[in-house]
Amino acid sequence: MVAKILYGTEVANKIKEELITKTEELKKDNIFPHLVVISTSYDKSSQVYVKSLEKKCNSIGIKFTEINIDEYDTTSAVELIKKTSHRDDVHGILIQSPLPKQFDSFMLKNSISPEKDVDGCTAENQGRIAYNKAFNQPCTPAGIVEILKYYEIPTEGKNVVIVNRTPVIGKPLSFMLLNLNATVTICHSKTVNLPSICKNADILITAIGKANFIGKDYIKPNSVVIDAGINCDENGKIVGDVVFDEAMELCEAVTPVPKGVGTVTSIMAMKNLIENIKK
Amino acid sequence: MVAKILYGTEVANKIKEELITKTEELKKDNIFPHLVVISTSYDKSSQVYVKSLEKKCNSIGIKFTEINIDEYDTTSAVELIKKTSHRDDVHGILIQSPLPKQFDSFMLKNSISPEKDVDGCTAENQGRIAYNKAFNQPCTPAGIVEILKYYEIPTEGKNVVIVNRTPVIGKPLSFMLLNLNATVTICHSKTVNLPSICKNADILITAIGKANFIGKDYIKPNSVVIDAGINCDENGKIVGDVVFDEAMELCEAVTPVPKGVGTVTSIMAMKNLIENIKK
Repeated sequence: MVAKILYGTEVANKIKEELITKTEELKKDNIFPHLVVISTSYDKSSQVYVKSLEKKCNSIGIKFTEINIDEYDTTSAVELIKKTSHRDDVHGILIQSPLPKQFDSFMLKNSISPEKDVDGCTAENQGRIAYNKAFNQPCTPAGIVEILKYYEIPTEGKNVVIVNRTPVIGKPLSFMLLNLNATVTICHSKTVNLPSICKNADILITAIGKANFIGKDYIKPNSVVIDAGINCDENGKIVGDVVFDEAMELCEAVTPVPKGVGTVTSIMAMKNLIENIKK
Repeated sequence: MVAKILYGTEVANKIKEELITKTEELKKDNIFPHLVVISTSYDKSSQVYVKSLEKKCNSIGIKFTEINIDEYDTTSAVELIKKTSHRDDVHGILIQSPLPKQFDSFMLKNSISPEKDVDGCTAENQGRIAYNKAFNQPCTPAGIVEILKYYEIPTEGKNVVIVNRTPVIGKPLSFMLLNLNATVTICHSKTVNLPSICKNADILITAIGKANFIGKDYIKPNSVVIDAGINCDENGKIVGDVVFDEAMELCEAVTPVPKGVGTVTSIMAMKNLIENIKK
């Protein structure tokens, strides 16, 4: 058997086309969708990400503004974020990660108004997922759910194992999949006997950050594997957490890296932004 | 083997003694702890619960006020809750459940200021659990964690299975146990093959609401079983979800019903209240 490859690019392209249409409609009603990214000069590699966000916004027709903040002044940063949240011409705010260590990054992120928190990182949005009432869901979990829905992978009654317990991915994703009637197990670095738990998964979702870590010993035959890891292997090649060839042999379906989860993640902030306006 | 019985009453009594001491200290500093319960005349049985809260507050030295609201006016109720949240002489607010169906109960609960939400039901507090930064944690999950800590039951690396996915118990409890390094599985009514999943649990936590539902087929030998169910059996006797005799034979430790989780749950709101003042 050879697994079906679940291309995130295909999902992302479909979402992008929809967003272009919706953005045009909004502009006819004199609403000009606008994303603000709060950035620092701290992390060079994430500046590349900010640039790619700008390009993506441009290609959809969303106005993009980058506001660079003083790296040593949390109080001013919080005030700026609150003020930006109150601007009628701003529909979404993102804070570049990682932030310099001297910042209280939770406090900073939690200063965004939940209605404009297109990254779904505020406590209010995280908690609203428990009630299935989030204004904005975090981008990576939301992207994973989009992939499952696009490829019509059923979740009800399925055993889903998530290897990640962060508030960015694993925790909110667990609630989103519970809301879709999956049985959910969350694993992490302290999990004992990880391979045998993963091998029970009908749907295995990994975001570990270790190149080629998840091999055939972790994969149930005919299962679905969603690889949200983005790593460099020893040859400098971008790979996921999963040994792709072994997953291809065993699984029913698997996401590739690149062209997988990451491509959908990066468009979800724009999807959140446009949907916020519609609400 | 006969299991150890984990009496919630023992944990609750210890907490109560600590709260009495802390309340006396606060009063010496001219701080008079005060709980407000927002109630309706809708549900008779929960009125009994409100009375028992009043008694418990009295026995600790916490001032208790019940405010009865109009059952048909959400707007006034929300305003009242917000106004009460801003009162300096009020340190905790609880809303009686269940609320009449015509109310938007999420909106009502979410109107409590997170710092005074001693039931931990606001989205802000639910989401803060993901970051391990909650002002107040929901009472039943917090009570269960108190029992595990009191009886020194290790959680790190343990497989915990929770049968409940509500925002009142299962969802926040899963995050609290992840924060304690457990591997967590959340099950519910749509879970396929519940017995075999439960039988893998080092710690099984049930809040199903079905008398004597969890028997020996669900229980791993030498495991710990925490029974958060409160049900009437066919003879009108209060029992849990677990067939107690079978758990006693198989387990290392088990909570009884009554005198189990429920007794700790009902004191956690007061613990939250006193800790809020100290913060």
